[in-house]
Amino acid sequence: MGIVVQKFGGTSVADAQKIKNVADAVIREKLNGNKVIVVVSAMGHTTDNLIKLSKEITTTPSEREMDMLLSTGEQISMSLLAMAINEKGHKAVSLNAMQVGIMTEHNHGRARILEIKQQRVKKHLDNDEIIIIAGFQGITDDGEITTLGRGGSDTSAVALAAAFNADRCDIYSDVEGVYTTDPRVVPTAQKLKVISYEEMLELARVGANVLHPRSVETAKLFGVPMRVRSSFKLDDLGTLIIGVDEMELHKPVTGVACDSSQVRIVICDVEDRPGNASKLFTLLANKGLSVDMIIQSYARSVGNTNDIAFTIDSADLVKFSEVTEEIKKIVNPSNIFIDEDIAKVSIVGAGMIDRPGIAAEMFETLAKIGVNIKMISTSEIKISCLVEKNHAKECIIALCRTFDLDGAAVADVKGDLPD
Amino acid sequence: MGIVVQKFGGTSVADAQKIKNVADAVIREKLNGNKVIVVVSAMGHTTDNLIKLSKEITTTPSEREMDMLLSTGEQISMSLLAMAINEKGHKAVSLNAMQVGIMTEHNHGRARILEIKQQRVKKHLDNDEIIIIAGFQGITDDGEITTLGRGGSDTSAVALAAAFNADRCDIYSDVEGVYTTDPRVVPTAQKLKVISYEEMLELARVGANVLHPRSVETAKLFGVPMRVRSSFKLDDLGTLIIGVDEMELHKPVTGVACDSSQVRIVICDVEDRPGNASKLFTLLANKGLSVDMIIQSYARSVGNTNDIAFTIDSADLVKFSEVTEEIKKIVNPSNIFIDEDIAKVSIVGAGMIDRPGIAAEMFETLAKIGVNIKMISTSEIKISCLVEKNHAKECIIALCRTFDLDGAAVADVKGDLPD
Repeated sequence: MGIVVQKFGGTSVADAQKIKNVADAVIREKLNGNKVIVVVSAMGHTTDNLIKLSKEITTTPSEREMDMLLSTGEQISMSLLAMAINEKGHKAVSLNAMQVGIMTEHNHGRARILEIKQQRVKKHLDNDEIIIIAGFQGITDDGEITTLGRGGSDTSAVALAAAFNADRCDIYSDVEGVYTTDPRVVPTAQKLKVISYEEMLELARVGANVLHPRSVETAKLFGVPMRVRSSFKLDDLGTLIIGVDEMELHKPVTGVACDSSQVRIVICDVEDRPGNASKLFTLLANKGLSVDMIIQSYARSVGNTNDIAFTIDSADLVKFSEVTEEIKKIVNPSNIFIDEDIAKVSIVGAGMIDRPGIAAEMFETLAKIGVNIKMISTSEIKISCLVEKNHAKECIIALCRTFDLDGAAVADVKGDLPD
Repeated sequence: MGIVVQKFGGTSVADAQKIKNVADAVIREKLNGNKVIVVVSAMGHTTDNLIKLSKEITTTPSEREMDMLLSTGEQISMSLLAMAINEKGHKAVSLNAMQVGIMTEHNHGRARILEIKQQRVKKHLDNDEIIIIAGFQGITDDGEITTLGRGGSDTSAVALAAAFNADRCDIYSDVEGVYTTDPRVVPTAQKLKVISYEEMLELARVGANVLHPRSVETAKLFGVPMRVRSSFKLDDLGTLIIGVDEMELHKPVTGVACDSSQVRIVICDVEDRPGNASKLFTLLANKGLSVDMIIQSYARSVGNTNDIAFTIDSADLVKFSEVTEEIKKIVNPSNIFIDEDIAKVSIVGAGMIDRPGIAAEMFETLAKIGVNIKMISTSEIKISCLVEKNHAKECIIALCRTFDLDGAAVADVKGDLPD
């Protein structure tokens, strides 16, 4: 008898009726002949409401007490789901992170899972019970409650699937799967039947917020097959996420994504001396600034200086403004130039590995529609181009056409785009 | 440096502003030079709302899952209070029952505390931190979450005071202390400066719902001095509850209480044979019926039978009706008579020990105003008389006058009384 892990997000357990529907989905999997481990998030807006409450007390709560507060959300939904399953005549038991033994680092608010204890869960699995486990939370070796940060419940689910050698980890939410572009923007977007961890990771990083990269990374590491599927359409199998070596590759490009929430920063005329780039990015890292694309231009003919350009999240501009003086001191640039009028358009596909023509095809597509590329970055299975914001939509349409994804597809998964 | 335990009920932590006020009360005790352990209940209507949510799922939730659900309430208020104290510049740390090690029986919904582990709390006390602990909850030796039932948070506070040898356990709520009669009904009622555990227990049992008897019993057992005081009037010391041997006794009677929520049941003409009473009350106990006053009349001249009369809570009448047939089978009475028109009026006072005249004074007082006594029961420090409901108020007024408690006092602490 195989083990299936099912994870249900906050919208899936938002009220009593939805929790009863989830109970049906769980029982269905049980009746399919599987042992079932369920991971739940907090109900609907519970977490937001708790955060709001804490803000009425203090704007600077300790992360330890925030974890103590927020971890109650999952404990509420897990006990209610266990009741709903019991009510329908099946044996269920809810367990929090302390009871399971989901051991994490001593790092409040964003802990990583170190180990999951076997004993308690195995006991209930052997007893043929459905086990409901609180997602998002963990426990340190000295009994402190931690939370896993963004994407935490997905990560809990995948880690449990890995720990108990589950056949599959199904992530249920209000989306029906992974699409070539964002289906909430483009109804004609194609749903993928299968995608590789690597492609999913690249899509997640460039703005397709179906799954947090951490959960996908964990699934990839332990080879856990994941499914992204809808809790409202149980007959729909959604999208399977597996290793690239298990996939048959048809198209070189799987998806097009767009992120218009970044800004480009150019540090002009930095003296071309070893250590300058290192100093600069160490400074930014210490400030907690997450830098995405980085380009250093070749030393110019005059003065032996470089331009260093990179992108950061536009929400981090205030933080950045606090270090500009220090940057001037460290690398003595002629100017610091901030460009907010940018969008990052990316194509992703495991099929582009060893097919260098794909990059050229992308650049050619953009050139044909007269769009200037401001920056380029590439990974094994992703190519991203920075373009002016008001060109982003036409870029996406053109790229979808070129790579046969969807003639009419226009995606804007992160940030707002002008038409 | 002494240890003080402070317990704050649900109304004291009902919103962010009130939690900040509680933080002030805690810090005040700390600045008095004490080490402080705080026990909190769930905020305002949190528990009621969680129960309502569970009822939308099932009318028959397992007690285990209810404990899992309800224990989140205290975890929310304790973390918020810790934040509020931190915000005011003092070190505070919140701990749930699992982290403290509040060990209980395996008995969901009404567990008794067996042991409180020392290590974790001592560590924080040594570190001069204010410790906020979730009331009402416990943990079994195999890691299951339990709750302590009615009066649970008061019991948690007293048990912690006993475990850490605290100088005092202060129970803060929206009442200012223990009164000779209910101050919410009679504004002229006198607040007692001091009362013994024994008197408090008797008052609690006859309907003065300031403290649950369990917490007072625990305090008496371990000799923990308790204070009942208002969280809204911090300068008011409220009422101190201590051992009767530590008190100077002035008045023989400390308080008058009234319970009009009971009904009297008379099982008529039970054959006077050994074992009949035992069978009857075993049956009632098995049905979960809590019996209060019991009177067995002397065998009558005709037929060698007894009348057995007792009182039960009127809310239990439905349960009782389910066993009347069985009662008939077991003890073969001529009739079962139910009298709903009763009120139990009680006088309580440690000063009545070894002063038998007090009972006579009570009966004489009631006789003078023409009130017939239906049943009498006495303990060392309490005398209760069952009277017709519509006489209850005049009885209380007369008794207050006789025992010099308050000329105008009329108490109705439990149930409704006719004028």
